[in-house]
Amino acid sequence: MSDTRPLILISNDDGFDAKGINDLAEMVRDLGDVVIVAPDGGRSGAAVSITSGMPVRLKKISSEPGLEVYSCTGSPCDCVKIALDSVLDRQPDIVLAGINHGDNASINVLYSGTMGCVIEGMIKHVPSVGFSSCKREPNADFSALKPYVRKIVKNVLSLGLPPHLCLNVNFPPCEEFKGVRVCRMDEGEWVNEWERRIDPRNREYFWLTGTYKAYTPDDDSTDRWALNHEYVAITPIQLDMTAYKAFDQIQELIK
Amino acid sequence: MSDTRPLILISNDDGFDAKGINDLAEMVRDLGDVVIVAPDGGRSGAAVSITSGMPVRLKKISSEPGLEVYSCTGSPCDCVKIALDSVLDRQPDIVLAGINHGDNASINVLYSGTMGCVIEGMIKHVPSVGFSSCKREPNADFSALKPYVRKIVKNVLSLGLPPHLCLNVNFPPCEEFKGVRVCRMDEGEWVNEWERRIDPRNREYFWLTGTYKAYTPDDDSTDRWALNHEYVAITPIQLDMTAYKAFDQIQELIK
Repeated sequence: MSDTRPLILISNDDGFDAKGINDLAEMVRDLGDVVIVAPDGGRSGAAVSITSGMPVRLKKISSEPGLEVYSCTGSPCDCVKIALDSVLDRQPDIVLAGINHGDNASINVLYSGTMGCVIEGMIKHVPSVGFSSCKREPNADFSALKPYVRKIVKNVLSLGLPPHLCLNVNFPPCEEFKGVRVCRMDEGEWVNEWERRIDPRNREYFWLTGTYKAYTPDDDSTDRWALNHEYVAITPIQLDMTAYKAFDQIQELIK
Repeated sequence: MSDTRPLILISNDDGFDAKGINDLAEMVRDLGDVVIVAPDGGRSGAAVSITSGMPVRLKKISSEPGLEVYSCTGSPCDCVKIALDSVLDRQPDIVLAGINHGDNASINVLYSGTMGCVIEGMIKHVPSVGFSSCKREPNADFSALKPYVRKIVKNVLSLGLPPHLCLNVNFPPCEEFKGVRVCRMDEGEWVNEWERRIDPRNREYFWLTGTYKAYTPDDDSTDRWALNHEYVAITPIQLDMTAYKAFDQIQELIK
């Protein structure tokens, strides 16, 4: 790895061999040296989870000029942690995650392993951006994202991001986008989440499924609205989750 | 379960048989009917992760008047999801998580499976509170927490909580507390996180460890400061992670 080119760390929650992460690396490869440290398999829904109860392993998958690839047995967040601590010889200039096969807009920020990578990068003072597409298929065509991904990565590399803030960028499933909107995180909930089944031994089991239901579906300030209307949604996400507005009300609870 | 007494759902990330969750159930049992739905083993660091790649199982462990206990093979967040969807016959009046063996102050909100339960309860419109103690030992004595836990649970049951807000309550390791402080979430990072070891077959592996480093350690408005000074820390946490203040700056990035 060069000491003078930007150093770009990439991870995801779909695994090091997913199409999305490899497409992302190709899109930005000429902008710096790329190191991929990503899970050894799918970790969708891993959130900002960390592996505390068992050790993790790291494996070098490939190395060529400007691109190294490692897989890790841990969570997406573990991958960023171990890359920063034990793989890279200097702080990266940017952490990217994705391209996720499936969007991470709205409250899915909280469930998303992709955003787990990005949040960890933010905690560690590295400008961090997650890219996700509504296209879920393993062989999805992400080529329409390329100019947007490159512009955002170039601008973040040159301008940085405010401290303790990261970006959640989501793309609608269409091939042409109406524009880019800076959005708030949509709030809502997943409903009808469990499908009950009976296994061949006549024992009950449950699959997580469900439908997303926005609290205020017609609000055009949200990332969900932007995606539903064919806009690219950029949602700035902050580390501080404190509800300052509620301080007086909470004081009443402890009187 | 009664239709008239408050319905209290309790979960955690240390497992249904941890001392902390059973102590918590005993502390609040006279305030309502208690249903525990908790992981079948330890899930520390599970965050708001969900199980997407495999099904989960649910098992009834015990049932007595006013107290039912279930274990689930899923994540802490899965436990709350499956309790609300497939175990309880009505919406609970409160979701509690803990008592966690180990604090969840500062950025640990994001890594914590305990707070994963609480965040899921908040998303589902249930007033939700997480209790964690700096005492990590499996047989920790949590009796000093009891009057504080009961006051908070009673007040939340009678007054509710603002929408899309939950509480992260952390207790210092001492036996007497100097008081209760409503705090902001401390921001900081874990450093020196990986311990590299060699296994008996001469292969490398890594254990997650580390030391917490606050960005501003002397700031007395944080939950970390409160714990360090023997206060109970109550941090209101909100669902909305949008960094509204950065909207103008982010617009510049996409020009």
